Amino acid sequence: MRILGIDPGIAIAGFGFIDKIGHKIVPVQYGSIETEAHMPPEKRLLTVYESAGALMDKYKPDEVAVEKLFFNRNVTTAFSVGQARGVIILAAAQRGLPIAEYTPLQVKQAVVGYGNAEKRQVQEMVKMFLKLAAIPKPDDVADALAVAICHAHSVVMKRKLNEVHP
Amino acid sequence: MRILGIDPGIAIAGFGFIDKIGHKIVPVQYGSIETEAHMPPEKRLLTVYESAGALMDKYKPDEVAVEKLFFNRNVTTAFSVGQARGVIILAAAQRGLPIAEYTPLQVKQAVVGYGNAEKRQVQEMVKMFLKLAAIPKPDDVADALAVAICHAHSVVMKRKLNEVHP
Repeated sequence: MRILGIDPGIAIAGFGFIDKIGHKIVPVQYGSIETEAHMPPEKRLLTVYESAGALMDKYKPDEVAVEKLFFNRNVTTAFSVGQARGVIILAAAQRGLPIAEYTPLQVKQAVVGYGNAEKRQVQEMVKMFLKLAAIPKPDDVADALAVAICHAHSVVMKRKLNEVHP
Repeated sequence: MRILGIDPGIAIAGFGFIDKIGHKIVPVQYGSIETEAHMPPEKRLLTVYESAGALMDKYKPDEVAVEKLFFNRNVTTAFSVGQARGVIILAAAQRGLPIAEYTPLQVKQAVVGYGNAEKRQVQEMVKMFLKLAAIPKPDDVADALAVAICHAHSVVMKRKLNEVHP
């Protein structure tokens, strides 16, 4: 199963494709979609939407996982991130891809094992899980891979639960 | 010139098309795009995006005006409204439509004449400007028409300034 993890944003949106093969998780491709601050907001949204769609068409994920909310950010940031998130979710919905949402707490719990883990610990675990030489940069890319790994673990958990309670 | 005003939202998005003919403002069509709470978020976004696009294709606005921000709402609301706003702006950008953004303060100043006007006063002025028999319902529709009227006034102001300082 191929999972696309996304850390949405208008200036930088991180993305990470991983393959879950049995219990193994393998990185496929990761990076960021970036738009320049001098562009009109609508052109930036169009760029994020088209780039996300092009990535989905190229790497053909089976499922998409997106971080759910930033409670610690302000309303203006939430608005801006929400807009970027909206067009990315739209691109996935237009391709009929299932979309899972995870809170930062759920991501930390799945990747590090406890919800109050620090950003650096999450990044180190991402590097370890995917056997990478270095922590992916910028942070948005590591965050996108973390939410993809979270989804891979969640899928395993759901299957296990289904085996116990079919 | 035909203007589309939008009050974005995921449960209800108000829209209002108006024609500005010289100094006259005439209503063309107004209403709301509504999605049901039991639908998955991505399907709701897809509905908002497709409905907004279909309205733009049917009524062919020259310009689009959207309310800018709700500073008084919480982060979760901002996130959700932001997502809906993102796909509506995307639909406009894909059609090459110019998009103007106005704060609630700017809308009130343009429609009522002062920034601390109450909601009811804005609605009464919308009804008067457009010579409607009643205030459009729900509030989101009146808000959408208000931002369209605000844009019509703003365009007039800009032309006057250009005449003075060409």
